[in-house]
Amino acid sequence: MKSTNVTRVMHLVDEHERWTRQGHRGGVLWLTGLPASGKKSMAYELESRLFAAGFEAYAFDSARIRLGLCSDLGFGREDRRENIRRAGELAGVMARSGLVVIAAFISPYERDRQAARAAAENFHEVYLDVPVEVCEARDDQGRYARARAGELANFTGVSAPYETPKAPELVLDAVTHSQSECVDQLVTYIERHFRSI
Amino acid sequence: MKSTNVTRVMHLVDEHERWTRQGHRGGVLWLTGLPASGKKSMAYELESRLFAAGFEAYAFDSARIRLGLCSDLGFGREDRRENIRRAGELAGVMARSGLVVIAAFISPYERDRQAARAAAENFHEVYLDVPVEVCEARDDQGRYARARAGELANFTGVSAPYETPKAPELVLDAVTHSQSECVDQLVTYIERHFRSI
Repeated sequence: MKSTNVTRVMHLVDEHERWTRQGHRGGVLWLTGLPASGKKSMAYELESRLFAAGFEAYAFDSARIRLGLCSDLGFGREDRRENIRRAGELAGVMARSGLVVIAAFISPYERDRQAARAAAENFHEVYLDVPVEVCEARDDQGRYARARAGELANFTGVSAPYETPKAPELVLDAVTHSQSECVDQLVTYIERHFRSI
Repeated sequence: MKSTNVTRVMHLVDEHERWTRQGHRGGVLWLTGLPASGKKSMAYELESRLFAAGFEAYAFDSARIRLGLCSDLGFGREDRRENIRRAGELAGVMARSGLVVIAAFISPYERDRQAARAAAENFHEVYLDVPVEVCEARDDQGRYARARAGELANFTGVSAPYETPKAPELVLDAVTHSQSECVDQLVTYIERHFRSI
C-alpha cells in the first residue's frame, strides 16, 4: 500500500436503498474453470437471462479486461496474479453499485481467487467442472493444439497448472449438462441468494 | 498490449435495452480539480441527488480506488498516469453496464484525462474551477500546509503541476457558487444529456 495521503468519503446512498429499489442485492458470481470449459458464453447467457428476470446484471471476462484495464499484463505467474487482483477489485466496486456481477476468469490459482473473494461482499465462486480432455475436444479455436505445439506459453491445462477450487459455493457439471441447463441452475441459485435484502 | 491469445464474446443484452428499462443512458461524469476543490463531497452529493431522481448512479474517488484497484501505485508521474488509466477503464466498464458514473480525481494531466475519455463513451469532463489559494484556505485536513512543509511530495498545486482542462464539457465556478448550487447545475446537465436514449 503506497497511498498514505488519501481520505475517505462515505456514500450517502445506503446499499440497502439501492437493493430495495432494484429488488435484489449486489454481489459477484465468479466463474472459474479451464480454457474452453464454457465460462464466457455461459456468463453472457446468464447475464441475458438475469436481465430478462429483472436483475441489474453485468458480465465481463478476462479477454475483455485484458484489452483495457489489464492491457499491460501478460500470462506469467505474477501478471496472472495482478490480472485477477484487478478483476476482483473491479467486480467488488461494481457489486457495491448494486449489480449482480458475473466474472468469467480461468483464475487457476486458489490464492488469487481468494484475493478476488476478499475484494467483494456476497461473493460466490462457481467451478465449471470439465476435464481437460473434454475442454480440448471442445476448443474450436485450437488453443490447446497451439499450446501443445509450444506456440502458446503458460497455457492453463497444458503448460501451466489449474488448481481445483477447494471450497466453491457451487460446482457445475458442464459435461453431463448443457450450457442452458447450467444457466438454469445459476439463475435458480441467484434467485435464492440475491433476492433477500 | 501483451494479450494476444484472447477472444471476444459479445454481450447478448443490448445497451439500448438497458437504457430503455432504466430511463437513461450510461456514461461518465469526470470531476477534475485541485486538491480540496470539493470534488469528492460534490461527487457523493450528486450520487445521492441522482439516485433520488431515479438514476442508476455510482460515485468513486481516487482515495477509494487507491485503497483497492490502485493500492500498488504511488504519486510519481508514471504511477499517477497508471492510476488515471485504470480509473478511466473502471469508469468505462461501469458506464457500459448502464450506470451514470461519477469519478472524482485530481487528474492533473491533460494527457491522462484524454486517456480516461478514450476509455468510455458518453464521457463528460467537469472542471471545478477553484484557485489554489481558495483550495488551500478550505483544506481542513492541512494537506497544503504539509506539502509546503515538505512532508507530502508530489502534491498537486504545490510541488506538482495542475494542467487546466483545455476543453471540458462543463466548468463549475465553485467559488461564487455553493456545493449545492453546483450539484443543481450537474443534475440539470445530466437530465439534459443522459435522458435521451
